[in-house]
Amino acid sequence: MKLGLFGFGCVGQGLWKVLHETKGIRADIKRICIKHPDKQRPVPAHFFTTNALEILDDPEIDIVVELIDDADAAFEIVSGALARGKAVVSANKKMIAHRLPELYALQQKTGAAFLYEGACCASIPIIRNLEEYYDNDLLTSVEGIFNGTTNVILSKIFEENLSFAEALKFAQVHGFAESDPSLDVDGFDPKFKLCILLLHAFGVFVRPEKVLHFGIGRVNAFDIEFARSRGCVLKLVARCFRENDKVAAYCLPRFVPQNHRYASVRHEYNAVTLESAFSEHQMFVGKGAGDKATGCAVLSDISALRYQYKYEYRKFSQNGTFFDTSETELTVYVRHEREGQIAEQDFASISERYISGAAHYWIGKISLEKLQAAAWLNDVGVNVIELKN
Amino acid sequence: MKLGLFGFGCVGQGLWKVLHETKGIRADIKRICIKHPDKQRPVPAHFFTTNALEILDDPEIDIVVELIDDADAAFEIVSGALARGKAVVSANKKMIAHRLPELYALQQKTGAAFLYEGACCASIPIIRNLEEYYDNDLLTSVEGIFNGTTNVILSKIFEENLSFAEALKFAQVHGFAESDPSLDVDGFDPKFKLCILLLHAFGVFVRPEKVLHFGIGRVNAFDIEFARSRGCVLKLVARCFRENDKVAAYCLPRFVPQNHRYASVRHEYNAVTLESAFSEHQMFVGKGAGDKATGCAVLSDISALRYQYKYEYRKFSQNGTFFDTSETELTVYVRHEREGQIAEQDFASISERYISGAAHYWIGKISLEKLQAAAWLNDVGVNVIELKN
Repeated sequence: MKLGLFGFGCVGQGLWKVLHETKGIRADIKRICIKHPDKQRPVPAHFFTTNALEILDDPEIDIVVELIDDADAAFEIVSGALARGKAVVSANKKMIAHRLPELYALQQKTGAAFLYEGACCASIPIIRNLEEYYDNDLLTSVEGIFNGTTNVILSKIFEENLSFAEALKFAQVHGFAESDPSLDVDGFDPKFKLCILLLHAFGVFVRPEKVLHFGIGRVNAFDIEFARSRGCVLKLVARCFRENDKVAAYCLPRFVPQNHRYASVRHEYNAVTLESAFSEHQMFVGKGAGDKATGCAVLSDISALRYQYKYEYRKFSQNGTFFDTSETELTVYVRHEREGQIAEQDFASISERYISGAAHYWIGKISLEKLQAAAWLNDVGVNVIELKN
Repeated sequence: MKLGLFGFGCVGQGLWKVLHETKGIRADIKRICIKHPDKQRPVPAHFFTTNALEILDDPEIDIVVELIDDADAAFEIVSGALARGKAVVSANKKMIAHRLPELYALQQKTGAAFLYEGACCASIPIIRNLEEYYDNDLLTSVEGIFNGTTNVILSKIFEENLSFAEALKFAQVHGFAESDPSLDVDGFDPKFKLCILLLHAFGVFVRPEKVLHFGIGRVNAFDIEFARSRGCVLKLVARCFRENDKVAAYCLPRFVPQNHRYASVRHEYNAVTLESAFSEHQMFVGKGAGDKATGCAVLSDISALRYQYKYEYRKFSQNGTFFDTSETELTVYVRHEREGQIAEQDFASISERYISGAAHYWIGKISLEKLQAAAWLNDVGVNVIELKN
């Protein structure tokens, strides 16, 4: 197997190292396409090129590994390689979530394999398990902690009494958060992963814009104290589930009791829980962030290509399911600042109301559709956290 | 796909039900071989036979599902079916652990598939993940809570302050333990699973007799109090690991800190942790006991046979590893009754000694080989628990 790499950051360099160390995989990196040819690099210069076509048009290269940040450029590389019949490995969740229908069509047309285990919860082999092991219609829900950055922040808040701002700072200083952390903190990143899993779990293509995401950026001292007072910690949970032929999905912070299985999933670890008719819940835990964890998934994808593995997307071809959130009702805590700030008529019922100088909150039931459409959700003085047993 | 079933207990009946409900799998049960034809059963009588050959010699039946208790009879059925070129699904861990070399040879000779995901931690898809996803030599250890019965007992002890005897009684009354619970309580069952995983994780055939197993049958009030005093609970942990080309394995109770990921694995749940160079630890959690959990795994195996899935045993063909426990050293707590009861010269070092009217204990380092060979280990007044960080 001859590989062509796009990008040579930490994941790419780790891959280089492992491919030279491991006995199990015989794969050579033939060429590496990079943007800045003048950077000092630990690999001889003749491996590098700045011309993508030197990889894409090289008939000796069987496998393209795409490890760059830019989503649009990544799509060009991936689709160009697939169109030329090359197998492709990528971990670019944003690009994949937005381009799944086109990428699916390209795989069908060319017969080329496109693997992206590293795009969902890094080292956790969740796509492969959904493809291979849950290949029947007994699966009812897939949810979990899909974002390492926010889990680091929330762990620091609840274990070391940091404020949100202090915890975010810690995550940034230690390389767990970008200088612009909004993709993670606001819940875009776990939502992208959710959109990918929706296809492999339930056979539905769902555009990211259709899925409610609400992050942890508005968590304040009052919310933290409220969680503590109820024996809970906070986790950012992405969730999709099926009821008969309808599939719904959303990503919200959640109160999690201290003895719940999610409470022990700390720092950069991710967890995915599957529920099915027979097995009740099953949980996969592993590192969800970091170059090594992603490199591990990329390596396993490369390894699988040795025996011509591809995703079959069986759920999509089998299924009569469709995306429909109209019947989903959530129980939520809505913290706000003043009377009239949130619309009571949006709620199906309200079971608790609290008013003080520090904050107001309601606990009540609301449909996912109403929550998603609510103008008050955009008000930075409002925070929403799910209560779920 | 036409199935022939051996045994029609709870798993078999659950399978019948699901196969008639699910859209994903089109598989018909054609015939069911049972021992007692006169029992009342919820399925028409013409499905049943007491003659194994009516299944084994039926050319229309592609897949044999073996769901009986008796290990010797199960081996006859499985080997008979494989020899006739039929695919086989089984969950009989005792039979498989003891007969792996013969069963492997039969698969190689006949080309027939033999799947047994249900034999290891029931609903957790660990064999398939080891086969497919960890197909490179970066894996360093596989360990976990492999037995549901003992985990129910230990959970009851630590969560509800029951004694060992009371907790065992609870497990028996609620169907989590057999009337003769020794296979579970003494650690045979998790050891059988460990022997199966040793082949799929590290490519070594290990006879169960070679592996130290020590259960929880000797846990007394003093041990429980000791665990509590150190902020720990007890879990029965089976473990195998690789160092260079040497693989070692054992099954021992372990002190587990209350915030450790294993502490939240409670009641009939099992957990498997994998450690590898790239992904650090990854954990799979799911129901490890019960008819539904086993049925779930059996069903997934049947489903995989639709696309001609078989175990490749790649680690065995790739690997230069061998089973060798000579360099393994453990840190253990050894509770005993009186001076001179355990042999001090067996220990590499002893870091704590405690003597009272209630009990004595030592904490020290001992080689796995010496522990395995120690005559004092057979003394019912001695209990051994591992301390591991």
